[in-house]
Amino acid sequence: MKRVCIVGASGFTGGELLRILLQHSGVEVVCATSRKFKGEYVYRVHPNLRGFTQLKFVEPTIDAALKADVVFLALPHGESVKWVPQLYESGVAVFDLSADFRLKDPNAYVEWYKWPQPHPYPDLLAKAVYGQPELHREELVGARLVAVPGCMATASILMLAPLAKFGLISAPPVVDAKIGSSGAGAEGSVVDLHSFRTYVVRPYEPVHHRHIAEIEQELSRLAGKEVKVAFTPHAVDIVRGIFTTGHVFVEKMPTEADLWKYYRALFGDSKFIRIVKDRLGISRYPNVKYVLGSNLVDLGFELDARMKRVVTFAAIDNLVRGAAGQAVQAFNIAMGFPEDEGLRHIPVAPI
Amino acid sequence: MKRVCIVGASGFTGGELLRILLQHSGVEVVCATSRKFKGEYVYRVHPNLRGFTQLKFVEPTIDAALKADVVFLALPHGESVKWVPQLYESGVAVFDLSADFRLKDPNAYVEWYKWPQPHPYPDLLAKAVYGQPELHREELVGARLVAVPGCMATASILMLAPLAKFGLISAPPVVDAKIGSSGAGAEGSVVDLHSFRTYVVRPYEPVHHRHIAEIEQELSRLAGKEVKVAFTPHAVDIVRGIFTTGHVFVEKMPTEADLWKYYRALFGDSKFIRIVKDRLGISRYPNVKYVLGSNLVDLGFELDARMKRVVTFAAIDNLVRGAAGQAVQAFNIAMGFPEDEGLRHIPVAPI
Amino acid sequence: MKRVCIVGASGFTGGELLRILLQHSGVEVVCATSRKFKGEYVYRVHPNLRGFTQLKFVEPTIDAALKADVVFLALPHGESVKWVPQLYESGVAVFDLSADFRLKDPNAYVEWYKWPQPHPYPDLLAKAVYGQPELHREELVGARLVAVPGCMATASILMLAPLAKFGLISAPPVVDAKIGSSGAGAEGSVVDLHSFRTYVVRPYEPVHHRHIAEIEQELSRLAGKEVKVAFTPHAVDIVRGIFTTGHVFVEKMPTEADLWKYYRALFGDSKFIRIVKDRLGISRYPNVKYVLGSNLVDLGFELDARMKRVVTFAAIDNLVRGAAGQAVQAFNIAMGFPEDEGLRHIPVAPI
Amino acid sequence: MKRVCIVGASGFTGGELLRILLQHSGVEVVCATSRKFKGEYVYRVHPNLRGFTQLKFVEPTIDAALKADVVFLALPHGESVKWVPQLYESGVAVFDLSADFRLKDPNAYVEWYKWPQPHPYPDLLAKAVYGQPELHREELVGARLVAVPGCMATASILMLAPLAKFGLISAPPVVDAKIGSSGAGAEGSVVDLHSFRTYVVRPYEPVHHRHIAEIEQELSRLAGKEVKVAFTPHAVDIVRGIFTTGHVFVEKMPTEADLWKYYRALFGDSKFIRIVKDRLGISRYPNVKYVLGSNLVDLGFELDARMKRVVTFAAIDNLVRGAAGQAVQAFNIAMGFPEDEGLRHIPVAPI
Repeated sequence: MKRVCIVGASGFTGGELLRILLQHSGVEVVCATSRKFKGEYVYRVHPNLRGFTQLKFVEPTIDAALKADVVFLALPHGESVKWVPQLYESGVAVFDLSADFRLKDPNAYVEWYKWPQPHPYPDLLAKAVYGQPELHREELVGARLVAVPGCMATASILMLAPLAKFGLISAPPVVDAKIGSSGAGAEGSVVDLHSFRTYVVRPYEPVHHRHIAEIEQELSRLAGKEVKVAFTPHAVDIVRGIFTTGHVFVEKMPTEADLWKYYRALFGDSKFIRIVKDRLGISRYPNVKYVLGSNLVDLGFELDARMKRVVTFAAIDNLVRGAAGQAVQAFNIAMGFPEDEGLRHIPVAPI
Repeated sequence: MKRVCIVGASGFTGGELLRILLQHSGVEVVCATSRKFKGEYVYRVHPNLRGFTQLKFVEPTIDAALKADVVFLALPHGESVKWVPQLYESGVAVFDLSADFRLKDPNAYVEWYKWPQPHPYPDLLAKAVYGQPELHREELVGARLVAVPGCMATASILMLAPLAKFGLISAPPVVDAKIGSSGAGAEGSVVDLHSFRTYVVRPYEPVHHRHIAEIEQELSRLAGKEVKVAFTPHAVDIVRGIFTTGHVFVEKMPTEADLWKYYRALFGDSKFIRIVKDRLGISRYPNVKYVLGSNLVDLGFELDARMKRVVTFAAIDNLVRGAAGQAVQAFNIAMGFPEDEGLRHIPVAPI
Repeated sequence: MKRVCIVGASGFTGGELLRILLQHSGVEVVCATSRKFKGEYVYRVHPNLRGFTQLKFVEPTIDAALKADVVFLALPHGESVKWVPQLYESGVAVFDLSADFRLKDPNAYVEWYKWPQPHPYPDLLAKAVYGQPELHREELVGARLVAVPGCMATASILMLAPLAKFGLISAPPVVDAKIGSSGAGAEGSVVDLHSFRTYVVRPYEPVHHRHIAEIEQELSRLAGKEVKVAFTPHAVDIVRGIFTTGHVFVEKMPTEADLWKYYRALFGDSKFIRIVKDRLGISRYPNVKYVLGSNLVDLGFELDARMKRVVTFAAIDNLVRGAAGQAVQAFNIAMGFPEDEGLRHIPVAPI
Repeated sequence: MKRVCIVGASGFTGGELLRILLQHSGVEVVCATSRKFKGEYVYRVHPNLRGFTQLKFVEPTIDAALKADVVFLALPHGESVKWVPQLYESGVAVFDLSADFRLKDPNAYVEWYKWPQPHPYPDLLAKAVYGQPELHREELVGARLVAVPGCMATASILMLAPLAKFGLISAPPVVDAKIGSSGAGAEGSVVDLHSFRTYVVRPYEPVHHRHIAEIEQELSRLAGKEVKVAFTPHAVDIVRGIFTTGHVFVEKMPTEADLWKYYRALFGDSKFIRIVKDRLGISRYPNVKYVLGSNLVDLGFELDARMKRVVTFAAIDNLVRGAAGQAVQAFNIAMGFPEDEGLRHIPVAPI
């Protein structure tokens, strides 16, 4: 039984970690921190949890966290880096859901996260495992510092991984993403108000989104050469969910059988990845609608011979597979639990 | 291990039964019938189930159903009655999600369901248990014919039960209900199309909805006298969920403590009923948003001394607690499983 | 040509006033005030207006307002009262969209709006016209101080007015209202964020909402006796729109022909009120969906002989008929413009 | 005063034509046809029109249409071609909202619309004007046969036109589109039901959508060379609206000033095109939310120097600018009315 502390537990990611971990057979949640809500019942901030826990938020302090065996950091970018060194040195295992340990190049934080100087802990950076379980499963075993991938990065990387791995990427893929409002977090600005955020389709940081850095890092690693992506996310009128579309111009068209082979080679053994490319039925490609509430990744593709283009698709629940669920999956691997412990929810549909 | 057959498994209720029962530790789903989709993979009609079952729909026949120990009938009103007698006589336990065995008075089917004559099986009607677990738990133990309550009836009855039981209902309560589109089922008419069904608030069978009959039956039983209700449902722009508001003019105002006492007396031991009446937090009354995907019933109330009125509230997920979940809960009690087996989902929020 | 100033123009009501008045043939909008956005182009706060005006917000000052012939005050309750006396004395016509001059009883502000003392300007209160055009058309002619009704009050009053006028109200009606998020205004709290405000059905100030005061004032006036209402509003997942349901227990059931006669007697000459009670077609009762963007009021009713109940319905666009549109309609009558000038928009549907 | 007949008036496009033309100062709508609803009041199918017209649907016959001066054909692809020759020869002006006269190459109908043989009226095809007003304004003057562009084609062409015209397109642009449910029309299949169509983000005909043909035709014309596009549309959870994103890899990056110049050169004189690229305000790029109910086209762009990419954006209301509004705009030009007659609606927001 692992004693777990969630630091930054009042946000959406924190709420999902609680939803998952409260029913994880190998976990006892011993603390949930929130500066803003300290002393308050957790269920008053996460009303879905009413009746499932009597936990109260506590002040976020290193001391509180050190009482746990494992800490999940659900903090803003730039905050986690203040917590990780001491926790790590104290022997606590850390699953960091921020970006602070995702990029291997210390200088990348200057470019992508506007840090005034390179990452201050390059040694820890080197030790941190990029926690995408399907692509880093072996490194995760026993890991004590895991950088959980970004939500849009997760979908983008997984849908393109087979193409990168099997040499189909010659020109930079276009990745056009669509994301729900929960990605903006539980403390919003005026444009996140219901009246302003409904009925939108609009771009969002259309040419320099920070997830590009980790997408390129992972795809380059898989391809064995530098891969760059032209990435543009859009806000759409849903709360949960990310859909990414990859437009990949290829030198030589693969066959459909090739693509099936490549996707299966990478993901055939995964409990969470479904390849959705069907000839029949009401849902023949991935669709955000059919992954909600689950840790699944639905991947798909289509061939456009006319344009020498492969189109790839991914649909995930951004709060589960894009954050809390993927973190728990990585935790399960690291700690020796079954990979899907606490994560066996069938998606809720229709919703 | 119970062998279960779901008859009428291609609709939303059938889909939810599958979602729940596929992860029920004491159940093996041995058949799922659909006339329309026979021979087709279940996951092609319920895309959320892809990867969780390789079951195919089969033709709905008594013979198929008789191979199971337990049959869930998710058929339209007027269809179940053709199945129940033979199944029942063959010793199969039947959980009927239609209205065909809910009303104790055989003549009520003429009035409320426009049957040309009274119910043809009054003996079976007498044996059938009205399967609302919190109010009929003892009758359910060992039951072999269970009439699972209607969705809007469930919310209406539960929110008013304490008032009926403890003598507060003197004049007919007004019950104003709000319901999502999934209540109309998976085969819709033009007004159920997305373009027509979004952005609606409109009444729906505003004075003679069929659920009135079971609401009055149950409240009268609890009150020990005839109780009639003025019931008006409305369509609102959600897929899942029912919210009911009960406006009860009382002869003598109870105190808030009285009401807490009455609600706790009836539901204090329930694993699924939350009384939501809080002074703090972001959700101080029931809200459809915080029960989605779960079998929970959120009940609440408020006192209006100025008008000598008690206002009561209920929020449920119509597909879970209003249909499939309540059916499984009744099944668990009948069969001796833990009452919440397969039903421990924490609601998914925000969504 | 009237020179108009909109005070408090950065909110939703201000935005709608601009949308309507920018295309009103008899109006020149000479100022739009906003403390928060002064100096900013109006279209940067109301992006739908881009290309339709080059107006910039100015500091809200009496001096700025005095340059206009007519001032629309779209200010919070308790703010308008600081502006009205000086504007009124200076000869400017004032259309106040707050509640500050709606209630005729100066003491009512203590009870319903928690003012520390009665209304400080009882003389002005006596002069103010309650600006619901269909019920106060004659008083509005030439009026210089108009209190524009509240949004939920408008729907509630209009749907019940014929019953009040023609003696059908003996017991207090139950009014169950459903409202969109724009009613909360353009500056929200956390529960107004998209992620929190989608997929809700929940009560909102369920027993003591402030609009009760004006509903009772108007219905009592029409009935010639005191009428009280049991009013409970609910938040539903739309941005625009209010739907009200009135449950009226009557001593003697009217016929359907009676009701048609009563509704036509009051509203038969109105350009904006549609009585929606149809035997055929896809929309046989009022529905928020079919009034969006317009100043229409859709009214309907149904008879429940079993319960001796008349059910009444109203659907309006809260920002148009519940605020800006009704204000302009009152302005048109007061100033001698055609009553529908600037208000001839056909509802946009489907949306 | 033009006498107008709308053939196929029961669909969404027909409804929008009615909404617009009923308030057009130069038009009398003399007939609206519908096979399915003949004899029925138009407002029973388009409830927003209740009170604005007493018109009834009539059987769709050439004779009925010939009584008008102008006919709008809102028929399915493949149907219009049966009507146009006789109407045209009889001297009636025809505005065809189907695809039947959009493509100049008679053989293209075999490839893109699966016609068994080339277009049977190549002479009429040659005479038909592709009715995108901003790009064919001069040809439209006096035109008697106008092929109104497709909805997604309109957005795609307009956002890329300046790049095509000014030589920036060297490689095939990726066009990633997002569209609401109304694009599927008023008679849907099961996947168009509310319960199935909410909460979706999913691709839709991802590699061979028929609008590609007209997009390539128009861009090639503007560029003076063949331009091909890699086009993939997606269904998102809105009713109205199209958003298109163009990803254009360029040989040499233009400056921002260049792009402003190119967009202004083509569209600076348009009453309906807004270039939305702002440094301040709550909406700095195009957004479906801010064009609803209007004939506007919001265009925008962003520069991605890192990738040598120009990203372009367009947002339109698919039923207005993507169909009925653009048809009326073309009609206005053809007939000598002011180009914006009947089309001056300011977008309704928030909604």
